[in-house]
Amino acid sequence: MADIPSLVVSAGLKIKPQVPFVNLGGKPGRDIRSGRALENAEEVIKIAKILGENLSKTVEYLVIGESIPGGTTTALSVLLAMGIDAMGKVSSSMPNNPHKLKIKTAQEGIKAAGAQVGDFENDPLKAVSSVGDPIQPALAGLVIGAAEKVPVIMAGGTQMAAVLAVVNVLNSQVLKNLVIGTTRWIINDKTADLKGLVNQIADVPIFAADLDFSKSSFEGLKAYEKGIVKEGVGCGGASIAAILKSKGTITKDVLLREIEKNYKQIIKTT
Amino acid sequence: MADIPSLVVSAGLKIKPQVPFVNLGGKPGRDIRSGRALENAEEVIKIAKILGENLSKTVEYLVIGESIPGGTTTALSVLLAMGIDAMGKVSSSMPNNPHKLKIKTAQEGIKAAGAQVGDFENDPLKAVSSVGDPIQPALAGLVIGAAEKVPVIMAGGTQMAAVLAVVNVLNSQVLKNLVIGTTRWIINDKTADLKGLVNQIADVPIFAADLDFSKSSFEGLKAYEKGIVKEGVGCGGASIAAILKSKGTITKDVLLREIEKNYKQIIKTT
Repeated sequence: MADIPSLVVSAGLKIKPQVPFVNLGGKPGRDIRSGRALENAEEVIKIAKILGENLSKTVEYLVIGESIPGGTTTALSVLLAMGIDAMGKVSSSMPNNPHKLKIKTAQEGIKAAGAQVGDFENDPLKAVSSVGDPIQPALAGLVIGAAEKVPVIMAGGTQMAAVLAVVNVLNSQVLKNLVIGTTRWIINDKTADLKGLVNQIADVPIFAADLDFSKSSFEGLKAYEKGIVKEGVGCGGASIAAILKSKGTITKDVLLREIEKNYKQIIKTT
Repeated sequence: MADIPSLVVSAGLKIKPQVPFVNLGGKPGRDIRSGRALENAEEVIKIAKILGENLSKTVEYLVIGESIPGGTTTALSVLLAMGIDAMGKVSSSMPNNPHKLKIKTAQEGIKAAGAQVGDFENDPLKAVSSVGDPIQPALAGLVIGAAEKVPVIMAGGTQMAAVLAVVNVLNSQVLKNLVIGTTRWIINDKTADLKGLVNQIADVPIFAADLDFSKSSFEGLKAYEKGIVKEGVGCGGASIAAILKSKGTITKDVLLREIEKNYKQIIKTT
């Protein structure tokens, strides 16, 4: 709607998308309970940094979103491995946040890596290589590469706290160019605490798009108001960028109408 | 030198580069003598077009170069299949242009595809699928996607004539936004005829960077003046873009000094 160009990046996809996408040399992550989740995190960070640097030369600012299965669990495990008090603080795409299951999984992974909670406080590479998801080195590299030159909106929920923790250790110089952009649903999530996570890591502002699906005519969209989904694929950050670029002509009501149009098409074709 | 951002695109690489690169879903091309060189040219054009459209939203103009083994042979075969008088007109990276070998190879491929010279005049998809290289649908899609919005420099030699022939049939609306950007070595190549090729296809201007390596202190670079190499990886178009962006402070002498610096590093490390 705001005519903002987009570029799809694969951090380590097994199934390749049918659109142009940037390959960062990442491989699919392993079960984090193995304690050896990623093979080549350092290489991915290096390559992602080159992409971030190049993208920063063509844009005013960059919005970086993500989509990962089990993303809050791998965020939790990396945050715990790096010594951040994250138990009960990561969000969930479900109304009943299965904190116990996530914590058990994260602890199992950290133990399998021969470590304890907090052991990788100053070694984010070890943290993501042991119990992380390929998205974390990919996002960290992109952020570090781009934010040296332009502002970056890290578009996501509590998963971005894990990326922020990695960036903070690898290059704290870029923190001044970062904001987290998310949705009202994340901020209002009583089962999680994005602010509590971010505040432990760095002084980075959090913006939230005031999206509201309560008046939608689709039950599937109304469900967002009951705590289902909340974020995804940079939803909050993309909305913020669209609202900013349109100088406010794209309002939350305009967004809802467009989202409903797309939603209608999707349920028709599936 | 001119701080121009770059993005590497794979049209169908077998060996993946250790830098971020965009995947267009292309597969390595087969021997064109099979008459069935490419599997999914149409899909690659479609995906490349999306990338071109997106890139065109962030730049003033786009420079698209390429690097392919055997590229003038697959250019020749596509040009012949599309009925363009191209025999003896494609360039070579060698001083002695092996026209006979190239023509024989191209004719063998066209025959294997069950066709004759000129049969695919109005069917560029069939031409590249039969006797082309994955670079041709990739470049054609990029050019068509980008040139609807911004000017595009097609950076290359006689290989770009084949891409131009494909673009001309698929979307002649974009021709007004195209130039071919190449080097003095291609224009001065007495064994080939870029102008003669382009003039048969469309009224598209040819720019040539006035590069001159005759005063280089390296024999390997002086060889360009004897007809070796001539072009590659968008050399001419990239030089033109650098000269334009620097408003002339990057001259051909400045370029030669920088090229020599890089050349020295390369021969040191190999």
